[in-house]
Amino acid sequence: MSENQDLQQGFLETVKFDEKGLVPAIVQDHETGKVLMMAWMNRESLEMTLERKQACYWSRSRQKLWLKGESSGNMQDVHDILIDCDGDTILLKVSQKGGACHVGYHSCFYRKAKDDLSMEICDTLMFDPEEVYGKKS
Amino acid sequence: MSENQDLQQGFLETVKFDEKGLVPAIVQDHETGKVLMMAWMNRESLEMTLERKQACYWSRSRQKLWLKGESSGNMQDVHDILIDCDGDTILLKVSQKGGACHVGYHSCFYRKAKDDLSMEICDTLMFDPEEVYGKKS
Repeated sequence: MSENQDLQQGFLETVKFDEKGLVPAIVQDHETGKVLMMAWMNRESLEMTLERKQACYWSRSRQKLWLKGESSGNMQDVHDILIDCDGDTILLKVSQKGGACHVGYHSCFYRKAKDDLSMEICDTLMFDPEEVYGKKS
Repeated sequence: MSENQDLQQGFLETVKFDEKGLVPAIVQDHETGKVLMMAWMNRESLEMTLERKQACYWSRSRQKLWLKGESSGNMQDVHDILIDCDGDTILLKVSQKGGACHVGYHSCFYRKAKDDLSMEICDTLMFDPEEVYGKKS
């Protein structure tokens, strides 16, 4: 594929949503490169993200638009949006306020496999989820 | 969730495969943090990756195990494997030989949205895919 062919379409036309109308979005700190989370977008949440420059996803569990940080205040300001060769994965480069993970860590990827296939914590707790989201009933 | 609860299970038991038996794997350069690609793993390819310390995926288009670099020589040596809070996304930290992308770029994320929603190239060509994979018929 030549460079020209690659850039023929606009960004939105290049995105291939899956059979559920969703595309995965990898979220990375724009300065450190740390991968913070992966979430899913439908077309509406992608358009909202492009317009507001704040990350907005589609919550598969709640089946609704989800402006990241709407409950926790931990918003993601979007610096760059990239798309992969197949058009079926998005990469957001963001400034993350507080922690990205609902468990309270900076990144959702806070557990690492050890050689014996047990796991260890490899990230920093940023907040107490009970304080931020309220106590689970 | 307490730290102890988080680490109660082993790594393999923590991975939640989707209804197709697959889990997405984000692939990141272990030194620079650059995100190189996203691919999918089934249980067999994940176990092979853990055993060989070389990235192995499930090719959804070819419906077969895919040892990354088997055609191109652009293998990925795996340094760390992380898992996210929900257990449904994996993060591989790798050393990438050559380019990760079949188009010839270092990363599959070689196109960036501009403000007017056209796109620009934001990565480096590493190889000519026709030389590596042969000319398309």
